[in-house]
Amino acid sequence: MNERGNQTGVQGLIDRIHAESRKICNRGEVTSYISELSSVDISKFGMAVCELDGNMFAAGDSDERLSIQSISKIFTLEIALKLIGDRLWDHVGREASGYSFDSIEHLQSECGIPRNPFVNAGALVVTDTILQGRIAQDCIGGILSHVRNLSRSDDVTIDRVVARSEIESGSMNFAISHFMKSFNRVRHDVDEILNVYSHQCAIRMTCRELARAGLILANGGKDPVTDERFISRKAARQINALMMTCGQYDGSGTFACRVGLPSKSGIGGGILAIVPGKASIAVWSPGLNGHGNSLVGSLAIEELARAMDWSVY
Amino acid sequence: MNERGNQTGVQGLIDRIHAESRKICNRGEVTSYISELSSVDISKFGMAVCELDGNMFAAGDSDERLSIQSISKIFTLEIALKLIGDRLWDHVGREASGYSFDSIEHLQSECGIPRNPFVNAGALVVTDTILQGRIAQDCIGGILSHVRNLSRSDDVTIDRVVARSEIESGSMNFAISHFMKSFNRVRHDVDEILNVYSHQCAIRMTCRELARAGLILANGGKDPVTDERFISRKAARQINALMMTCGQYDGSGTFACRVGLPSKSGIGGGILAIVPGKASIAVWSPGLNGHGNSLVGSLAIEELARAMDWSVY
Amino acid sequence: MNERGNQTGVQGLIDRIHAESRKICNRGEVTSYISELSSVDISKFGMAVCELDGNMFAAGDSDERLSIQSISKIFTLEIALKLIGDRLWDHVGREASGYSFDSIEHLQSECGIPRNPFVNAGALVVTDTILQGRIAQDCIGGILSHVRNLSRSDDVTIDRVVARSEIESGSMNFAISHFMKSFNRVRHDVDEILNVYSHQCAIRMTCRELARAGLILANGGKDPVTDERFISRKAARQINALMMTCGQYDGSGTFACRVGLPSKSGIGGGILAIVPGKASIAVWSPGLNGHGNSLVGSLAIEELARAMDWSVY
Amino acid sequence: MNERGNQTGVQGLIDRIHAESRKICNRGEVTSYISELSSVDISKFGMAVCELDGNMFAAGDSDERLSIQSISKIFTLEIALKLIGDRLWDHVGREASGYSFDSIEHLQSECGIPRNPFVNAGALVVTDTILQGRIAQDCIGGILSHVRNLSRSDDVTIDRVVARSEIESGSMNFAISHFMKSFNRVRHDVDEILNVYSHQCAIRMTCRELARAGLILANGGKDPVTDERFISRKAARQINALMMTCGQYDGSGTFACRVGLPSKSGIGGGILAIVPGKASIAVWSPGLNGHGNSLVGSLAIEELARAMDWSVY
Repeated sequence: MNERGNQTGVQGLIDRIHAESRKICNRGEVTSYISELSSVDISKFGMAVCELDGNMFAAGDSDERLSIQSISKIFTLEIALKLIGDRLWDHVGREASGYSFDSIEHLQSECGIPRNPFVNAGALVVTDTILQGRIAQDCIGGILSHVRNLSRSDDVTIDRVVARSEIESGSMNFAISHFMKSFNRVRHDVDEILNVYSHQCAIRMTCRELARAGLILANGGKDPVTDERFISRKAARQINALMMTCGQYDGSGTFACRVGLPSKSGIGGGILAIVPGKASIAVWSPGLNGHGNSLVGSLAIEELARAMDWSVY
Repeated sequence: MNERGNQTGVQGLIDRIHAESRKICNRGEVTSYISELSSVDISKFGMAVCELDGNMFAAGDSDERLSIQSISKIFTLEIALKLIGDRLWDHVGREASGYSFDSIEHLQSECGIPRNPFVNAGALVVTDTILQGRIAQDCIGGILSHVRNLSRSDDVTIDRVVARSEIESGSMNFAISHFMKSFNRVRHDVDEILNVYSHQCAIRMTCRELARAGLILANGGKDPVTDERFISRKAARQINALMMTCGQYDGSGTFACRVGLPSKSGIGGGILAIVPGKASIAVWSPGLNGHGNSLVGSLAIEELARAMDWSVY
Repeated sequence: MNERGNQTGVQGLIDRIHAESRKICNRGEVTSYISELSSVDISKFGMAVCELDGNMFAAGDSDERLSIQSISKIFTLEIALKLIGDRLWDHVGREASGYSFDSIEHLQSECGIPRNPFVNAGALVVTDTILQGRIAQDCIGGILSHVRNLSRSDDVTIDRVVARSEIESGSMNFAISHFMKSFNRVRHDVDEILNVYSHQCAIRMTCRELARAGLILANGGKDPVTDERFISRKAARQINALMMTCGQYDGSGTFACRVGLPSKSGIGGGILAIVPGKASIAVWSPGLNGHGNSLVGSLAIEELARAMDWSVY
Repeated sequence: MNERGNQTGVQGLIDRIHAESRKICNRGEVTSYISELSSVDISKFGMAVCELDGNMFAAGDSDERLSIQSISKIFTLEIALKLIGDRLWDHVGREASGYSFDSIEHLQSECGIPRNPFVNAGALVVTDTILQGRIAQDCIGGILSHVRNLSRSDDVTIDRVVARSEIESGSMNFAISHFMKSFNRVRHDVDEILNVYSHQCAIRMTCRELARAGLILANGGKDPVTDERFISRKAARQINALMMTCGQYDGSGTFACRVGLPSKSGIGGGILAIVPGKASIAVWSPGLNGHGNSLVGSLAIEELARAMDWSVY
């Protein structure tokens, strides 16, 4: 790859990756967790790369909206860090859990304090934080507005059917929330928190929008195109660090070894990965591996990072 | 800090960090795990930074030899990856454990496969791998020779009193090894494995030697001064990734958030941190925090990284 | 004790135990779990023994009503076994949990099936079973009616303030119920189940009434005085066996060793113990030990059983 | 069963149970834990009942010697309680573990104190206790002598091939012992403890001998035939209580519910059950259930207890 970083190079590369990924995109399992998502076509594949100068390269179904699910945990974490900064770490840990995304391991021995903001328990604490006394509807509006500003697209929406479906199949999240409530770890009503949480997870974005929204994390918290600062450099680095250590649940360490980039996955099959100082990558392929991360999506990012020599290490 | 990266700058910086660290170096607890180490003077503080061009900056007790203990797990991992490459990952995981360095959590549910090469269980599997049918004495010699080559110092030694002390107080490591043996996860005799392991942990190096030995990890596996390749670029990146996610046990994620550099700690109070493409940092301060990592040493690296704007994120 | 079992003997004995218990009844801690119960006077002590011929011996505050709390799990278990017999064991285990009464350990690894009917999770499944499609109010009425019939007292009541207090401080029970719901282990609405559960726990009985209500368990399921059969001999034996192995949570084995009788405790400070073929014992002392069982109450039963040579072993 | 308890009745009953058991004795799995035991014929079935007057009823392979394995934990517990009485409970708990016989769960959180004397960890502490400074050979001799006295048979032997096989496949027991050693919970060398332990497990007895040896537990610690006291009434009751709550590992509660008698199983397929005040039962059938207890042996005791109306409840 001699043309590293120039437009022809990246575009050619993701076209090739797209073609290869198509062949294997029936691997893995579409989530059965939420009924609305279980019917998504496993053969979907989209990929978008947005470089710091704003140049966008895309392939496949990159203009179709995917349900970002847990990737939304990044956006609420941005808002929470902006609101209360490092005080957030009094309420949620920064360590990998060693268990699945909705595990209750550790919660009991650690008195209801979640391991990190990307397991469900931690994300619920983050959501509780940004509710800050507002009604759910206002909070949901604030999150959507933040994501639209980041992605510079007003077409980002919330799928209310998916949100409702999430509430209905979300017994485990209710369990986790009540559990934390019993330790006084969340302040708002459980129903309120889950209302917001289910809506943030139900945000729909295209790969292009998602890659664009991630760009501030590749640029120390500032939009590199508009120069608008969304979060502090410190907060951006913290989020990248957490994505590296916890962004793919109990598969985070392996992804860090294989790819060497911060990333965050969602059970809708999306992954957002960050190349600090260079680019933001969004990929979508609904088939999941055993840890709940997009199987083909992971391979696509690995291949891209290898070819571009993109690794923080 | 205007003189970032130039010699005056780094030296002045670590002199200042040295002075500040001296004031607080009675914080934390000297390990009581091994009797020989428990008598180390808590007021010791050494720091060395080696840049890619071989320039070395040092302060404090940086010419005194510390017991590297678990930092040795990096050197045996280098040897193991050189020997069998990615096949190593069939025997040891790459995920954070969520528990302390000598925890047996996960070992039962995961059928004796350790979570990663930096918890004791994983390091014992790595040591078992590099024994490869040799007698313990040859294996110990090979490890020492590797570390001497990396640090370009024949003065690196093994403290046999500490090694013996480690065997005597190492019931937990015997327990872990027998546990893995019961699942056929190690091939050699437990006594043999622990003989090698106790000697690798008992290696004594100065901060200067340690920083020099870490330089290949900042340079894709190759000594940047002599151009000698020790391990592949891929292996170097994997090790950095593991240091980031698991190098400080259940404090790894927090260190990643605060500092943003791969690192590996030892209960002797040493820490080795890597700035990919730039430098290698060694620090020594015997007082440990609750996770078994040097308390003041961590703060010193955090301060250095902040001032130099060294972070992979 | 020459007059074992005759009236003078038992009465004299419990009078002596009452006197001794008074001296130490400030030991232990009154529950802080439910606000309404935390204000109970720790110096209360009541004891009643009801023999198979209906003879009742009592001492202390044995005519004052205590909140039976988890002792109610016996009564709902009786109803459930009468309703569906051994099919109940498809939904709840029969093994000690090795953890506290409201632990979530095991629930995850055992796919939401509770360890036994006396940990909260198991009692909630039992309550879900006896709801059987009825509205909560009818179910609560049925439980109260059953307890009144057993104790032959229409003065047994439900303290609705305590029930409400239980709901308000019952986040852990909500968590456990939603957790089981996520595995489809309960069929009714969580709110419905907890409504019934909080009311059964809030039943108030005197020691005399409680001892009388336990008599069927000492007589193979039949009231020995009226000859009315409430549950089968097999069900009575199963309940006694479960009281022996799980009736005092993680203190059950120790109580079995020291006393040798089936028993069930509640955090209100009550304990019901059964002497198969001989008698039923109720004791009340609000100070709890570390496992949530009445400290002085346990000692009182131990002393009574020792003096009467009452042990199943 | 009109002739309950008389000789014809019991003999006829166990003849019938023997005949029925033969038909299903290929159920379950012969242990693969120890190679020497894995070759035992699964179709073996022996049963013996010894009543308090010394009358013995037997059927099937009741004169063939089985490897008693964990049933030996009763005999060492008798010796330990005789030696140090209730001080034993400072070193080992009396609660069910909720996990398998060789689980390490709880050991870490409970600082190396085993849950009860019948999980391997606890039995190893008991063995450590009765070593009391003696050499292993003397201790083994003492145990064998105790069992011979109890069973009134000098033909009870130790199978040294099985003992050696146990050492060779006993990595988990080494692990557990070293683990406890790391918490200073055992005083002797791990090799010494395991030497004794492997020999006690390798004791070979017939069902007749085993039933005879259990008789003191049905009679408050005293041989009912010779009137010789072996252990105190209190110790006998404690052992029965522990057999009830922990004698069949994580199947103890279910056995207590179904059968209502104290019992102890071994992976050789033997079970000893006690009917306090009445009789001692030994059964042998090598096929094990999922908890490591004889499957057909359990059913045989359940059927006998049901027919004889033998239950402590």
